[in-house]
Amino acid sequence: MTQPQIPKEQWAQVIEGDNKLVFKQIPVPTPSPTEVLVHILYSGVCHTDLHALHNDWPLPRKTPLVGGHEGAGVVVAKGSQVGPSPAIGDAVGIKWLNSSCLDCSFCVRGDESLCPHATLSGYTVDGTFQQYAVADAKHVARLPKGVDFAQVAPVLCAGLTVYKGLKESGARPGEQVAIVGAGGGLGSIAIQYAKAMGLHVIAVDGGQEKGESCKKLGAASYVDFMKPGVDVVEEVKAASGEEKLGPHGVLLLAPSEKPFLQATQYVRAHGTVVLIAMPAGAKLSIPVFDTVVRMVTVKGSYVGSREDTAEAVEFFARGLIHAPVKVAGLSELKGVFEEMGANKVIGRYVLDTSK
Amino acid sequence: MTQPQIPKEQWAQVIEGDNKLVFKQIPVPTPSPTEVLVHILYSGVCHTDLHALHNDWPLPRKTPLVGGHEGAGVVVAKGSQVGPSPAIGDAVGIKWLNSSCLDCSFCVRGDESLCPHATLSGYTVDGTFQQYAVADAKHVARLPKGVDFAQVAPVLCAGLTVYKGLKESGARPGEQVAIVGAGGGLGSIAIQYAKAMGLHVIAVDGGQEKGESCKKLGAASYVDFMKPGVDVVEEVKAASGEEKLGPHGVLLLAPSEKPFLQATQYVRAHGTVVLIAMPAGAKLSIPVFDTVVRMVTVKGSYVGSREDTAEAVEFFARGLIHAPVKVAGLSELKGVFEEMGANKVIGRYVLDTSK
Amino acid sequence: MTQPQIPKEQWAQVIEGDNKLVFKQIPVPTPSPTEVLVHILYSGVCHTDLHALHNDWPLPRKTPLVGGHEGAGVVVAKGSQVGPSPAIGDAVGIKWLNSSCLDCSFCVRGDESLCPHATLSGYTVDGTFQQYAVADAKHVARLPKGVDFAQVAPVLCAGLTVYKGLKESGARPGEQVAIVGAGGGLGSIAIQYAKAMGLHVIAVDGGQEKGESCKKLGAASYVDFMKPGVDVVEEVKAASGEEKLGPHGVLLLAPSEKPFLQATQYVRAHGTVVLIAMPAGAKLSIPVFDTVVRMVTVKGSYVGSREDTAEAVEFFARGLIHAPVKVAGLSELKGVFEEMGANKVIGRYVLDTSK
Amino acid sequence: MTQPQIPKEQWAQVIEGDNKLVFKQIPVPTPSPTEVLVHILYSGVCHTDLHALHNDWPLPRKTPLVGGHEGAGVVVAKGSQVGPSPAIGDAVGIKWLNSSCLDCSFCVRGDESLCPHATLSGYTVDGTFQQYAVADAKHVARLPKGVDFAQVAPVLCAGLTVYKGLKESGARPGEQVAIVGAGGGLGSIAIQYAKAMGLHVIAVDGGQEKGESCKKLGAASYVDFMKPGVDVVEEVKAASGEEKLGPHGVLLLAPSEKPFLQATQYVRAHGTVVLIAMPAGAKLSIPVFDTVVRMVTVKGSYVGSREDTAEAVEFFARGLIHAPVKVAGLSELKGVFEEMGANKVIGRYVLDTSK
Repeated sequence: MTQPQIPKEQWAQVIEGDNKLVFKQIPVPTPSPTEVLVHILYSGVCHTDLHALHNDWPLPRKTPLVGGHEGAGVVVAKGSQVGPSPAIGDAVGIKWLNSSCLDCSFCVRGDESLCPHATLSGYTVDGTFQQYAVADAKHVARLPKGVDFAQVAPVLCAGLTVYKGLKESGARPGEQVAIVGAGGGLGSIAIQYAKAMGLHVIAVDGGQEKGESCKKLGAASYVDFMKPGVDVVEEVKAASGEEKLGPHGVLLLAPSEKPFLQATQYVRAHGTVVLIAMPAGAKLSIPVFDTVVRMVTVKGSYVGSREDTAEAVEFFARGLIHAPVKVAGLSELKGVFEEMGANKVIGRYVLDTSK
Repeated sequence: MTQPQIPKEQWAQVIEGDNKLVFKQIPVPTPSPTEVLVHILYSGVCHTDLHALHNDWPLPRKTPLVGGHEGAGVVVAKGSQVGPSPAIGDAVGIKWLNSSCLDCSFCVRGDESLCPHATLSGYTVDGTFQQYAVADAKHVARLPKGVDFAQVAPVLCAGLTVYKGLKESGARPGEQVAIVGAGGGLGSIAIQYAKAMGLHVIAVDGGQEKGESCKKLGAASYVDFMKPGVDVVEEVKAASGEEKLGPHGVLLLAPSEKPFLQATQYVRAHGTVVLIAMPAGAKLSIPVFDTVVRMVTVKGSYVGSREDTAEAVEFFARGLIHAPVKVAGLSELKGVFEEMGANKVIGRYVLDTSK
Repeated sequence: MTQPQIPKEQWAQVIEGDNKLVFKQIPVPTPSPTEVLVHILYSGVCHTDLHALHNDWPLPRKTPLVGGHEGAGVVVAKGSQVGPSPAIGDAVGIKWLNSSCLDCSFCVRGDESLCPHATLSGYTVDGTFQQYAVADAKHVARLPKGVDFAQVAPVLCAGLTVYKGLKESGARPGEQVAIVGAGGGLGSIAIQYAKAMGLHVIAVDGGQEKGESCKKLGAASYVDFMKPGVDVVEEVKAASGEEKLGPHGVLLLAPSEKPFLQATQYVRAHGTVVLIAMPAGAKLSIPVFDTVVRMVTVKGSYVGSREDTAEAVEFFARGLIHAPVKVAGLSELKGVFEEMGANKVIGRYVLDTSK
Repeated sequence: MTQPQIPKEQWAQVIEGDNKLVFKQIPVPTPSPTEVLVHILYSGVCHTDLHALHNDWPLPRKTPLVGGHEGAGVVVAKGSQVGPSPAIGDAVGIKWLNSSCLDCSFCVRGDESLCPHATLSGYTVDGTFQQYAVADAKHVARLPKGVDFAQVAPVLCAGLTVYKGLKESGARPGEQVAIVGAGGGLGSIAIQYAKAMGLHVIAVDGGQEKGESCKKLGAASYVDFMKPGVDVVEEVKAASGEEKLGPHGVLLLAPSEKPFLQATQYVRAHGTVVLIAMPAGAKLSIPVFDTVVRMVTVKGSYVGSREDTAEAVEFFARGLIHAPVKVAGLSELKGVFEEMGANKVIGRYVLDTSK
């Protein structure tokens, strides 16, 4: 195994305890026989990374931990059991699912994210807020040659998540999907995926500015829940066509009670409401009678599989997805977290690991 | 059109106001150009009929009303626009969906039960608690020659409803389905359909007697929620196999909060919980985090389409479904309702309209 | 029933025997109780109309016959059993499937085109090469208000046929479909539907001019089978990506033996080759070994259902489909047929019934 | 790693050249880091093994070669990278697919049999006609504790193949499937799987004896193509019900031209004909007109995935599948091949590797 120019030490952002983030030098990890070592060039910052820092999810986290799970870079070393692909020099991505067993009843049907043995980047194993990270060779995302590493980073988590949600909605090309929270980071990418999949988007969010941005990204219509006197249910139905049957699918990117109840009311009969975001402890209440007689489906959608990842990357590679990216240095993560915690971020931060 | 032996008057059970049921003679109805007149021989009695009597659903009911929506009988007259099928003398069934427009965006995809123009037997139009009833010619269920009319009656609603629910669960042959309320009227039919569809049934109900009955009907295992110290979630998981992954689908025939929450916990990841029963006003609470990371689906299932009906009848015709039927006279409906209201009925009452 | 301004006589193109076409005045038909009378404004001309004239298909044709099955116009009268929709004045289309029973096992699952009782416009019943035509009220295509009647006419057959074929291919958004005969009349519409459905098109046809036209319409790549020394199988595979796995679906718009055999070779493993055109008497030969080990599917696709029609029209209504249309007068049909017989037509002829 | 009682030498049947089979002692192989070593107890004999001996398929074969791909036994050693499952002592099966990359676009969607890097037991790598064989740890079939190793052996290829074919047919529980060659080795297992999946079987084969055997195994009806004056197409349609619409799926276990053409004629409109057997060089001819207007699908089905394998084994474990097995010694393989070549075998031979 030739490993040219791999240093022994590297810079990393390390969570050393709850809310304790330290920027320091640590050893470069060595890939196991089935792993690759990836020189991370850019890594996106996701709300999940904040949960890891705060340790407020009902899921045990590793400590100390290098967070991050949207890392794009280049393979620089391979374990002894790794086959010809990926090759040294290939562009790859490290995503939330760092590895899974590829052997359980979920993995064999392409549901790797449900594998009971899965490891999670930047959560149960070290992630991408470092210059060199390891990941299972069969799980790294294959990126096209010449890819823009900063641009592709958010596709590896935000993009994949909304793309999976759109698939899970069951909406077919030509059908309609309402995206609730369309003006936010996930939403703006979701609009683009939906459009690329031949879906017609009813964007739902608050404020005129977000409406303009949603339409620019391809939404067919916009429902502003902040408009005085608005009846969101009626407006979404009206936006779905003359018959006001409602959209075939709804993507709920901010599942608080009110938008959820509205969604179960305006979704078309036999349609699907997809839950994506997951505030810890949240519960949502389903009205039984209506759910039964209208045959409404409510489902949770988590992250995508390796197949979903390849598909999500392919849409990006064809130039159909543009995430609004802001670049900061890896060293600046603490400030980025503070901005995110204060809900001040528009678009998505991507860290340049060389800075 | 020859209409031999059709009387002008007939006996019927008429709801003349809330909780006011009168057994009396009324005129035999005349089919419209697109309807048939059916000589009802037997009609099943369903909990929905009680709701119609009490008028306690959030759905307006006709008054006066002849209730009933599980009627089996013989075509005795046809409207002028009815094609060759069904023919005079054919055995047919009248079900909850008396007619639909066959033209809207739900009807054209075989989702007739969601048609905004649908009429409902024994609810928005007169039903089958009379000796002669009309129904849309394209909606009456086709029954096999020589069918046992008393036996087939419950298939037209109870059977169809659980069969549809099993289809909506998405469970494939060889997979597992938990049936909650398996020892009741719907449950005992659901077990038989599930078995006929190649599914393995984990029956859930209370008491040893129900357990024996479930196993006799074909359940692979039984979880008794009344057993002292039982952990229903763990027991259902254990019944699903060594790995304890849980069943692929759950049919919730009695959706109160506790069994529902249990179902969302023991259903297999990426599995489906199907809501069927619908107590007025009920709400069920979904835990968001788990629903998302386990990709659980919760969906409502209403009654079946014409295709579902033909399939449900076909399973019956092959001798695979035996509803535990008790025959009473049409004149005895009031007593039957009293027994049902007091929760004393085991099996399903079917009324002989000649008595 | 008010029937303002409906004349007693009208102009029509009548097939009075094989190859005998007469332009003459005939009575305006009267709708049956379940039909509507449509004032046809424009009617497309399809190759099937030539087969009807020549009477060379293994399917019996009515004589005398008014041909045509791509008619767009306005409802001017309704039978007594027709519900509120369509209303007098509504824009509708008459398509190949004039009526079906809506009651058989195919109709109830939305496979009306397979109904054994179906009637066919311009083939087993009079069609749209006249100024006033009747059709089943539940089968006429609903067109949007203010539609361009000349532009929408070809959507009712050509558009619907290729859209159905694309659905039958099973290709999902982001996947690839090869369209063989992409430069022709059907092909140019197929490219647009495929693109609107999020599919990536590999256009296959002969000649440089067709290549340019395909790319203008949205094809991602073009394989010219007339290029000297070309290996079509290798080029299509190469166009499908670096790994050369081939497209997920193939639409065969001109099923002669050579393109078919090529398609079974270049289609991706577990992919689908869809046969659409149907020259009388043609047979195609499947290589068994390869078909099995590569799990290739070959399927025939006929015309679409009412649901497919509504969807195909919806794509048109959103401005995504532009058929290259040439307008001629209804009186000029004979000349149009001669041009078509001589293979001189580029694009699709649409007849203005007022001329 | 403890490897108790693994000998250095073992008995094996070795193909040393075309048609040259030698029973001899060879070294016990060593598993690679990702493989397990399986002590084979019983191995089924399949027609594919004869093709390997004759080397008459268009697929290169290894030489010298230990054939066999239906081996059942116990794990006795594991490579260094193999996880906790399977454990030493676990009952496992080695099947046709010995390994695949688990990384390509086919593997990630559970289509491992289409993996371009797959290795094939008893064909491109040594198989199960030996006492100790190696296979990829993630590909060996997991067998239930206490399994009957002789009985389960044919499930690993014959069972899996017909089960996959039935899945690919798309037939749903309650629907009908015609099995052509139902009286043979594959056919008799296919009947049992079909029945366990809730399908109704129309068995097609020649002779009265086979008819009785098919019905005993669960076929609902039998069509004897050897009956004088029989019209197979009409009889299969008649067996499908009063309306004579034909079965929803057809499994073609012996794809010669005549049964194939018959199948495309009697399969229900929008139904599927599945090709399974693959005589080298065979071609089948599709009639285009009928295939299009009846929307018939013809598809090849190869072997199943790991998910299919687990499902096929599960049906066996529940006692629903009984392969008619004849046991011979491993040393007797030559005689078994001679019987098979002479078409004298009824049922399936399974070799006891201890003899």
